[in-house]
Amino acid sequence: MAHDRTDLWTTPPAELLRPGGGFDLADMDRGDAPGWSGGKKDSKAFLADRAPLLSELQERLFAHGRTGGDRSVLLVIQGLDTAGKGGVVRHVIGMVDPQGVALRAFGVPTAQERRHHYLWRVRRALPKPGMIGVFDRSHYEDVLVPRVQGEIDEEVWKKRYREINRFEERVAAAGTTIIKVALMPSYEEQGLRLMERLDRPEKHWKFDPGDVDTRLRWDDYQAAYADVFANTHTDAAPWHVIPADRKWYTRLVVTELLTQALIDLGLGWPRPRWRVATQKRRLAETMSEESLAEAAEKARKKAAQFQVEEEAYAATVNEVDDDGPVRAEESAADDHMDEPATSRRSKQAPAEKKHKKHNNKDKDKKGKKKS
Amino acid sequence: MAHDRTDLWTTPPAELLRPGGGFDLADMDRGDAPGWSGGKKDSKAFLADRAPLLSELQERLFAHGRTGGDRSVLLVIQGLDTAGKGGVVRHVIGMVDPQGVALRAFGVPTAQERRHHYLWRVRRALPKPGMIGVFDRSHYEDVLVPRVQGEIDEEVWKKRYREINRFEERVAAAGTTIIKVALMPSYEEQGLRLMERLDRPEKHWKFDPGDVDTRLRWDDYQAAYADVFANTHTDAAPWHVIPADRKWYTRLVVTELLTQALIDLGLGWPRPRWRVATQKRRLAETMSEESLAEAAEKARKKAAQFQVEEEAYAATVNEVDDDGPVRAEESAADDHMDEPATSRRSKQAPAEKKHKKHNNKDKDKKGKKKS
Repeated sequence: MAHDRTDLWTTPPAELLRPGGGFDLADMDRGDAPGWSGGKKDSKAFLADRAPLLSELQERLFAHGRTGGDRSVLLVIQGLDTAGKGGVVRHVIGMVDPQGVALRAFGVPTAQERRHHYLWRVRRALPKPGMIGVFDRSHYEDVLVPRVQGEIDEEVWKKRYREINRFEERVAAAGTTIIKVALMPSYEEQGLRLMERLDRPEKHWKFDPGDVDTRLRWDDYQAAYADVFANTHTDAAPWHVIPADRKWYTRLVVTELLTQALIDLGLGWPRPRWRVATQKRRLAETMSEESLAEAAEKARKKAAQFQVEEEAYAATVNEVDDDGPVRAEESAADDHMDEPATSRRSKQAPAEKKHKKHNNKDKDKKGKKKS
Repeated sequence: MAHDRTDLWTTPPAELLRPGGGFDLADMDRGDAPGWSGGKKDSKAFLADRAPLLSELQERLFAHGRTGGDRSVLLVIQGLDTAGKGGVVRHVIGMVDPQGVALRAFGVPTAQERRHHYLWRVRRALPKPGMIGVFDRSHYEDVLVPRVQGEIDEEVWKKRYREINRFEERVAAAGTTIIKVALMPSYEEQGLRLMERLDRPEKHWKFDPGDVDTRLRWDDYQAAYADVFANTHTDAAPWHVIPADRKWYTRLVVTELLTQALIDLGLGWPRPRWRVATQKRRLAETMSEESLAEAAEKARKKAAQFQVEEEAYAATVNEVDDDGPVRAEESAADDHMDEPATSRRSKQAPAEKKHKKHNNKDKDKKGKKKS
C-alpha cells in the first residue's frame, strides 16, 4: 500500500524494536535509526504531517471516554538521565490536546509512598477512560534503582517482575493499551549530554550531581534493563527498546507507536444517548428566527464537509495503519471489523515476533551525534 | 516603546477587562475585542509569535520550581457551556511543555468530594512550585450552580465569597500568581454553538441535554456571575471578564495575561547549588579524550550563542512587558528591580482600576460570528 511522501518507514518500528528471542541489548547500535529510510529533516516533516491525525485520534479517544467508553492508552517512558524522556513528552505528547493527557513523573518515592506497596502510587496514576496516560519513569524504577544500589536481591526483583506482569495484564484487560518504551542512548552520548548541561547555564537546573553517580553504574543499569526486557516483555504490555542517540528518531518512533495504538482502537465518533431531533427542538425554542436561519445555513455547509472529512480520515487511517494490508486481505467478508482491536492485534502477538536485526546499520552513520 | 508588528494591543487587556468600579456585565458587548487593533488573522500571527516566548517563560518557571523556588501560576477559567474554555486550554496552554502544566477539570462533585468542604478538592489541585495550574471551572461553580438551582441562599453564597477571597489571598501569598478569566459569550452565540454541536455528529459528545436546561437559566447565571465579579475581584486574585463571541479574541487575551504574569515573576535561570567546575571534573573522568574535545568545541559555540539568546530574550521581555515603559521611567536608580514582582504590581492594584469603556465597539462588527 502506498504511503504518502512523509512516511518513510520501511518497517513498522513496533516490529523492529520489540525485544523478542534474539534480542541483545549490548549489541544494539544506539546511533541507529532502524526502519526509517529518511534523515532528521524528514522526521520533522513526518511529525508535522502526523500532528493533525494524532490530534483527531486523541479527540476520538477522549470523546469515547466522555460517553461511557472504557478505553485508554498508557505510554510508559523509561530511560536513564538525558535519554530524552522530557523531549518525547514535549514534542510528541505536546502535539495533542492537554485536556486528554494525564502526565505523571515518578521521582524518588516520598515518605508517604514508601509506606505503601511500590505499585500503590502507580495504580493511582493510571489513565481514566478516554485519556492518554504518560508515565515519565514508572514502576520499572523499582526493579532498576534498588537493584543497582544493592537494596534488594534477586529473589525480590524476580518477584516484582511477576507482580508487574500480572498488574499490567489486568490493566490491559480493563481497557488500557500499554505502550512501553525504553530510550537507550550510548554511554558516549550520555557523557556529551551531561556535559552540555554543565556547560550551559540555562541547563544547569536539569543537572544533579547524582547523575554522575548513576553514570558510574552504567554497566549495572544496562544489565538491569536487559533483565527487565527479558522478563517483562509480554503480549499485554510489550516493550520497545529505542536507540536514542538521535533524539529525532526517538520522537519519531513514539509518535508512530502512539498513532498505531490509537488506530488499533478503531474508535468512531460516539453515538448520542439522547434523541438529536428532540434536543434540537428544545434548543430551537430558545433561539431567534435569525439565529436559526444562520445555524441551518451553517449546518448545510458542514454536513457536506463532514462526509468529505470522514472519508479523508478513513483513507488516512487506512494508509497509515501498519496492519492495513493484512486486514485488507483478510476482510473479504468484512466481518472481522467488529472484533475488538485487541483480538485483531493478537494475531501478531509481540512475544512471538523476533526482534529483527536492524538493516540500515551502516546508513547515515556520520549523523550519529545529531539530535 | 515600539512593539513588534505582531503585537497589536493598544491597551493591555488586563487593564481593560478588570471589573472595576463602573463595570456592568449586562452592558458588555460580547462581540467586542477591546484593546486589540487587529482582526482574527492578526491574532494567529500574534500567537505564533508569542509561542516561543511563552515557552521560554514557562521553562524558567519550571526550572525555578525544580531548584527550590516557590512561585507558580494558576489560571482559573470560568464560563458557561460553549464559552470556549476547552479551546483556551488546547490553543493557549497547548503552546507550552505539558510537563509544566497541571490541568484540573472540575465537574459535578463526586460523592467523596461532597463529603468535604467545597474548597477541599480545589486545595488538592493547586499547582506545585514551578507549575502552571489550570482550572477548567473551579470553586466558583460553588457560588454559581447551587445558587441558580436554589440549593443555597444568599447568606451561604456571601459567606462563600468571603471564604474564597481569604483562600485566594493565602494561595497568592504562598507564591501563586492567580489569573482569573471569565469567558462571556452572548446568549445568541451560545445558541448557535449549541446548535452546531447538535448538527455535527463529531460534536455530539460535547453536548448534554442539561446544557439546554442551563441555558434556560441564562439570566440567573448572568446575575450570579455579575455578583461574583462584584464580590471576588481582589488585589490578590483579580478577574478578567472577556467578551467571548470571537474565540480568537479570548485566546489572545489569555495568552497575553499569562505572558504578562510570567514576565512579572522576573525569573532568571536558577544558579546551581553545586560547583560547576567540580562536577565537570567528575564527569570528565568518565569520558574519552575524543568526547571531551567534541564537548569543548560545542561549548565554545554555545557560549557565544547563550549571550546572544539571553540578550534577545531580555529585549523581547522588555518590549512585551506591559509595565515596561512605566518601569523605565521609574528606574533611574535601578534599585526597584530587586523588589518582588508583587510589590511592583501593586502600584496598579486591580481593584483601583476602572473598567474602561471599550473604544472600538463599532470596529469590525461584521466579524462578530467569526471564531
